[in-house]
Amino acid sequence: MIAVIRQSATTDQLDHFVAWVEAKGLKTNVSQGEDETIVGLIGDVSRIDPFLLESMDIVERVQRVSEPFKKANRKFHPEDTVIECRGVKIGGGNFQVMAGPCSVEGKNLIEIARACQKAGATMIRGGAFKPRTSPYSNQGMGERGLDLLVEVRKELGMPIVTEIMDARDIELFVDREIDVMQVGARNMQNFTLLKELGRTDTPILLKRGMAATIDEWLMSAEYIMSEGNDKVMLCERGIRTFETRTRNTFDLNAIPVLHHLTHLPIVADPSHATGYTRYVAPMALAATAAGADALEIEVHDDPSNAWSDGGQALTPSMFADTMRRVGLIRDAVTQEVR
Amino acid sequence: MIAVIRQSATTDQLDHFVAWVEAKGLKTNVSQGEDETIVGLIGDVSRIDPFLLESMDIVERVQRVSEPFKKANRKFHPEDTVIECRGVKIGGGNFQVMAGPCSVEGKNLIEIARACQKAGATMIRGGAFKPRTSPYSNQGMGERGLDLLVEVRKELGMPIVTEIMDARDIELFVDREIDVMQVGARNMQNFTLLKELGRTDTPILLKRGMAATIDEWLMSAEYIMSEGNDKVMLCERGIRTFETRTRNTFDLNAIPVLHHLTHLPIVADPSHATGYTRYVAPMALAATAAGADALEIEVHDDPSNAWSDGGQALTPSMFADTMRRVGLIRDAVTQEVR
Amino acid sequence: MIAVIRQSATTDQLDHFVAWVEAKGLKTNVSQGEDETIVGLIGDVSRIDPFLLESMDIVERVQRVSEPFKKANRKFHPEDTVIECRGVKIGGGNFQVMAGPCSVEGKNLIEIARACQKAGATMIRGGAFKPRTSPYSNQGMGERGLDLLVEVRKELGMPIVTEIMDARDIELFVDREIDVMQVGARNMQNFTLLKELGRTDTPILLKRGMAATIDEWLMSAEYIMSEGNDKVMLCERGIRTFETRTRNTFDLNAIPVLHHLTHLPIVADPSHATGYTRYVAPMALAATAAGADALEIEVHDDPSNAWSDGGQALTPSMFADTMRRVGLIRDAVTQEVR
Amino acid sequence: MIAVIRQSATTDQLDHFVAWVEAKGLKTNVSQGEDETIVGLIGDVSRIDPFLLESMDIVERVQRVSEPFKKANRKFHPEDTVIECRGVKIGGGNFQVMAGPCSVEGKNLIEIARACQKAGATMIRGGAFKPRTSPYSNQGMGERGLDLLVEVRKELGMPIVTEIMDARDIELFVDREIDVMQVGARNMQNFTLLKELGRTDTPILLKRGMAATIDEWLMSAEYIMSEGNDKVMLCERGIRTFETRTRNTFDLNAIPVLHHLTHLPIVADPSHATGYTRYVAPMALAATAAGADALEIEVHDDPSNAWSDGGQALTPSMFADTMRRVGLIRDAVTQEVR
Repeated sequence: MIAVIRQSATTDQLDHFVAWVEAKGLKTNVSQGEDETIVGLIGDVSRIDPFLLESMDIVERVQRVSEPFKKANRKFHPEDTVIECRGVKIGGGNFQVMAGPCSVEGKNLIEIARACQKAGATMIRGGAFKPRTSPYSNQGMGERGLDLLVEVRKELGMPIVTEIMDARDIELFVDREIDVMQVGARNMQNFTLLKELGRTDTPILLKRGMAATIDEWLMSAEYIMSEGNDKVMLCERGIRTFETRTRNTFDLNAIPVLHHLTHLPIVADPSHATGYTRYVAPMALAATAAGADALEIEVHDDPSNAWSDGGQALTPSMFADTMRRVGLIRDAVTQEVR
Repeated sequence: MIAVIRQSATTDQLDHFVAWVEAKGLKTNVSQGEDETIVGLIGDVSRIDPFLLESMDIVERVQRVSEPFKKANRKFHPEDTVIECRGVKIGGGNFQVMAGPCSVEGKNLIEIARACQKAGATMIRGGAFKPRTSPYSNQGMGERGLDLLVEVRKELGMPIVTEIMDARDIELFVDREIDVMQVGARNMQNFTLLKELGRTDTPILLKRGMAATIDEWLMSAEYIMSEGNDKVMLCERGIRTFETRTRNTFDLNAIPVLHHLTHLPIVADPSHATGYTRYVAPMALAATAAGADALEIEVHDDPSNAWSDGGQALTPSMFADTMRRVGLIRDAVTQEVR
Repeated sequence: MIAVIRQSATTDQLDHFVAWVEAKGLKTNVSQGEDETIVGLIGDVSRIDPFLLESMDIVERVQRVSEPFKKANRKFHPEDTVIECRGVKIGGGNFQVMAGPCSVEGKNLIEIARACQKAGATMIRGGAFKPRTSPYSNQGMGERGLDLLVEVRKELGMPIVTEIMDARDIELFVDREIDVMQVGARNMQNFTLLKELGRTDTPILLKRGMAATIDEWLMSAEYIMSEGNDKVMLCERGIRTFETRTRNTFDLNAIPVLHHLTHLPIVADPSHATGYTRYVAPMALAATAAGADALEIEVHDDPSNAWSDGGQALTPSMFADTMRRVGLIRDAVTQEVR
Repeated sequence: MIAVIRQSATTDQLDHFVAWVEAKGLKTNVSQGEDETIVGLIGDVSRIDPFLLESMDIVERVQRVSEPFKKANRKFHPEDTVIECRGVKIGGGNFQVMAGPCSVEGKNLIEIARACQKAGATMIRGGAFKPRTSPYSNQGMGERGLDLLVEVRKELGMPIVTEIMDARDIELFVDREIDVMQVGARNMQNFTLLKELGRTDTPILLKRGMAATIDEWLMSAEYIMSEGNDKVMLCERGIRTFETRTRNTFDLNAIPVLHHLTHLPIVADPSHATGYTRYVAPMALAATAAGADALEIEVHDDPSNAWSDGGQALTPSMFADTMRRVGLIRDAVTQEVR
């Protein structure tokens, strides 16, 4: 961490500042410039709040120089992490597609899942516990929904992905050997939940919060990893901006940025990121071209009667068409070009 | 809810659409314009997802016309709600100031609280359970922190406000008769937590999420109220924007907007909304002038050694100065002007 | 346009409102619902300010139902517009790549342009008039820069694209038969400039403003078109959000949304949209996969000594590599999948 | 400027980097930390593009330490600037209110202005040249509007404020001795216009762009000042965020932040910042409490027939009421509190 000291600071003030920093167990490196003096803070800077420094009278600006995420940081772990879910690998060159309905609704799940598998999906998604903006909306099937997913897995032999909203439900998920537990955008900074997921051995799909910076998102991954669970996938699903023609703004820049900063696999969700069926296919292609390790796509056999998010679901036939195109893009991305 | 139908829609398509809506138990009102046909959807529209409608081929645009929040809506409850916390009233003309340290740290709490009380604060705040962006930061004193707050309350006779992060802790809070349970910005859409708080009888201070619209925020209040707890205060604490000179952007517009839309009391937190000690006082005045029913301000006797957020804390003497100015503004706001 | 009337409105108030609307030359269609009354405003609603309606006491909400852009609207012009620049076609299935340095700097222009052409670029870009955030930064070569571009065009036979910042310079551009005049993000709502460009016959590349909604952007295209110049291309170059790991947030969703709303060709600029050389290639691929009709990419032979934006420039060899990958993606996008 | 060098950089790479910086005429100060090496760049860093540095392989992060604005910077000009407009002073403790219609429409101007003056306004505002999102909206009276403003000034003896959109119109404004030339939000980075305004001697009211950071806004002030015109006022009028319940988000934090960073006077415009008549008064009070040096408020005698922005205009009687309240707040702000 670097603190830029105001020109107006006296030598006494600077000495006092240096002493204060050193009392926190850090070393300092003072470098006098023409216009400013710069104090480098060396050691475990996680003990220092940069906002506190910036509020000090003699401090002009503060710059963090090392990232606060460690276990998620590619610097300390240069190799891509490959996560294996019941034999299906994600990351490090392995590309997968998770598909299925927004909500698990009942018997149609197996039909939808079968159609997804036929079209090339390698994992099945479906929500049993549903976070809904309105208390008056359907809140999901709960435990019974998990059981339906397990039946589908048994029948089709595909790993299943489903959202967990409450630490008290972890046992329900672990008992059923749910293959991937998804943390939704609204819970990205539910630190209690993250810590407890970190004590399980199940792969976690961590969605980006609607206003989360990439750094905060990686810190949330760090919460899980710091408790011992290294199997974290990051899922870009759109951020909130001023644009209202789409439900969210799909930040595809995040894909190459994350590949630069972290070794964890990156998933992209064009369904939530656009909010409209008609934009899902082109954005699935774009995410694949940008280098996503996996896609998560909502598919429903009867979108206009879906319990939730029918407006962004593909029908099985649209999904099959999209998968063919995704395959072509994936081939183009992985082809040698010289 | 209104659906605008594309000009290109055939009569058959329109009839099919109307039949589909009516099958959901709603009535329709079709109105043919020169350029567009408008279908009004009448009845319980919470059963219809507007994104689903918009994704239909013949639908151009959808507009919700009634707000989805009911219990929080001023239309159905025109009188201001007044919330009483151990004899201290907020809302409906009653103005209060909650002050204290970001984190409860130990013995200094009583000294800080005493200074706040002397300066005019009427409620004491302090965090025992701390949501921190980094897993490596101090996570708060937990239960022992609650006990320290209870001791302060006993000694000074002031109600206490403290954050709850996990539904499993509710018992700890209720057993100690915590006067106000605060829900942090990151948990504003932790629906599990909201529902369980709705089953208590304790006043709730609901902070706005960093990317939450005013409507979503009111829907989160609705989650609490729909379970039976009507004592909800809304706290504006800044939203996330592109501006980086302050920690957040203080959306003071939200104060008169909320007074227009809801009967619930509005609290403003200039400490988090700015992030810098030097901006807290002017923004406390601005929030008071905009019509806030209460302020929440961080005060620490030794900010440079605070466990958290020292960079935005006022010292007791700065707080006393701010309180004098807030008092003058409050007098100006409530004075008759004719 | 639709106005939703409050339940509390009296019949007199409603009658008064309807009379006021009709006095503006519009017709009305009143439809009484259970909870609300809806007034449809029929006719030339461009005479009515929706914010004015919303501020009226009896009006709850206002919804515009027809888009305010007409000439740019796909509804009234279903076929893709194809723009021809000195024989090179953009749109309607024709895909092009514009490449070259951020600033025209002198003799190296021809070398860079030659390398771009060899790698497959079909148009040359370069800035002669440069909008710079700081008055102390290099402001471009001006007229001499235009001449250098013209020389390059003569030598290589490729159309040239360059930015215009001031209506008084139009003559300089028209005299030299500049093939495409680019309007920068900061001038997207410089309505004076837009109108005068609308009176020329030169194709215009209209960049999206940093905080412009898609609708506002189309209204700016409409400004140009309403004066008679239909040759407008829209260029997505990133919007401003809270994310700071990239210079801007590349809103690739805008590509399919624009294809839905307008018949105009869509260009994507991954250089400005990311701000970092290392992210340009993946985002060029993503934009191509999302359906862009053209790319605009910055290339420099010696980025670390470029006058401007060297941090986002590709070297000629990186550009050649990117072009090979873009070609593969373009093939995948246009391939029949059944 | 500081460059943080990656741990992985070799000594050769570092030496090469240092040589490159020094070849640009800067000095360097290399400081080896445990985890990172930091290179301080000393001298005229405006020659270096921070994005270019960050794109270099061995560079981890770059931090600007001195602000790029010089003439606008309080560091180099600690005293408040006081701007005098025909005898009316703004800044340095002088508080003013500019009021009048959005658009100059004709004869009603004098009536509105007289009512504003009676209520306490000290300057008259009105738009003759109007930037409108739609080419089909009324574009203002132009030159004739300026003449009407001049007549009002003659009659009432008050300075006048009006918007300039095109550098070619400067003569029209200067010939009429317009007292304050306003630059609208959409032109905040119309650098051509800014530079030419910098060559006049007329006070400039520079509105903040909808997506402009405070630093960019100050750089635009710098554009004007660098050409010799020091009389710049900065006007906060709301920024664009995701919130749609108001037209813009009023960033009142900007007021104390600007007072910290610059010596220039700060104006606040609650009319555009909210967009709705009903929120103007509370936000005018809030801006005054936050420390604004002036307010700009839209007043119209018949808002429902105003040419533009009637939805955010106060009637003369609402304005008179607001002025009384503003006066009380201003008294409270300037009162000694000890």
